[in-house]
Amino acid sequence: MHDDSAPTQAYPVSARNRVRRMHERARYDHAAVHAILDAAMICHIGYVIDGQPCCTPTTHWRQGTRLYWHGSSASRMLRAQAAGLPVCVTVTHLDGLVLARSGFNHSANYRSAMCFGTARLIEDPVEKRTALHAMIERFYPGRDARLRPVSAQDLKATSVVGMQIEEASAKVRAKGNVDEPEDLQVPVWAGVLPVSMVVGDAQPCPHNGEHADRAGMAAYPPGTRLDEALARAAQDWQDGDRR
Amino acid sequence: MHDDSAPTQAYPVSARNRVRRMHERARYDHAAVHAILDAAMICHIGYVIDGQPCCTPTTHWRQGTRLYWHGSSASRMLRAQAAGLPVCVTVTHLDGLVLARSGFNHSANYRSAMCFGTARLIEDPVEKRTALHAMIERFYPGRDARLRPVSAQDLKATSVVGMQIEEASAKVRAKGNVDEPEDLQVPVWAGVLPVSMVVGDAQPCPHNGEHADRAGMAAYPPGTRLDEALARAAQDWQDGDRR
Repeated sequence: MHDDSAPTQAYPVSARNRVRRMHERARYDHAAVHAILDAAMICHIGYVIDGQPCCTPTTHWRQGTRLYWHGSSASRMLRAQAAGLPVCVTVTHLDGLVLARSGFNHSANYRSAMCFGTARLIEDPVEKRTALHAMIERFYPGRDARLRPVSAQDLKATSVVGMQIEEASAKVRAKGNVDEPEDLQVPVWAGVLPVSMVVGDAQPCPHNGEHADRAGMAAYPPGTRLDEALARAAQDWQDGDRR
Repeated sequence: MHDDSAPTQAYPVSARNRVRRMHERARYDHAAVHAILDAAMICHIGYVIDGQPCCTPTTHWRQGTRLYWHGSSASRMLRAQAAGLPVCVTVTHLDGLVLARSGFNHSANYRSAMCFGTARLIEDPVEKRTALHAMIERFYPGRDARLRPVSAQDLKATSVVGMQIEEASAKVRAKGNVDEPEDLQVPVWAGVLPVSMVVGDAQPCPHNGEHADRAGMAAYPPGTRLDEALARAAQDWQDGDRR
């Protein structure tokens, strides 16, 4: 797969995606935005149905500058997005609780990416199959070939939506507490409580055979940070596709 | 504080919040919705500015059936929400990666809550101060009294938005893989890779005194699950307020 995350490439900046607050935390380059997207399994999608804003969590995956998600063909969200619907896809990693010496300076360390574009149903059957293959391979490289093949019924029951990322921004806070100089003598603990998503011990299905094939699970040993595992799996998938 | 999370109380169900897909995963009672909200520090807010859907991550906190968030008074989101703006506030916890024997049956374990309402700027100075106090106390019970007091400048620079939860739904998947009976002989590992947010080792500010007061940090020792710590802190705050 061609990966167009070259650090020299960037998303255009407009009134829609320009970061106004804390703009020193903002990045628009593909590498920064894609790293945040690829380190997550769950995004939140902002869209409008009948004038009502909705914010729906779902699993996303990325291929170049395109984002994908999927769901039941009966999903209200996917039906609304079928014909082309403006959306904002946001991924956020909480990295730390920042404790300061005033309420005002309490904060959080985080990485977030907001992506704007138009969601559209993937109608072409080849593109749809390719996208569903990518969904498995992106999280579990090498796994799809070991699975029961996709059936006509699976395809009918599943809708896949794709979106070209037209504009995007990344915003990152990754530092210690920042207090006013005159607050430094307040005798309260200040600093950062780092947090991270961690993989626990695998819970096997009771029907697993003794030598069940662990295809695609290499990135996720117990104790691994999930963001790093997901990024590594995406990289392995891209490297595998390139070979 | 009166906590109206009694399990017998529930949010009304309408076309807006009724869960259509996998409705057996849905709950509408206060206890289920509030537990998901209280176990998180970050929500995603879906709203519309100039016809463009936006999805913005921010820190939220709950008091009864009201949600609050805050930010810079110059924030475009908060200015848009000042006069009353329909929003959808969603909190999602990813709890596990579910691996199955077909691509179709791969899934995720999660807990999510979607809350609908109208965001409005808190203009009343007493209500605003109370909300900012609650923001600190809800995460760090007992801490606010140890901090440098809120200044007029802090208040001017900060906007607080509040929302009555008009309708809400919780959706939870918490189980193992579900495969078709005819797929059980596919010789691939199936099961769940559980994931959780965990607190790491505290990173102290170099300006901390030797006996810096660790007020409000009791819920967050290293190795704690963040969702459980946040829920416990919220409970401690409510218990403290009730005493």
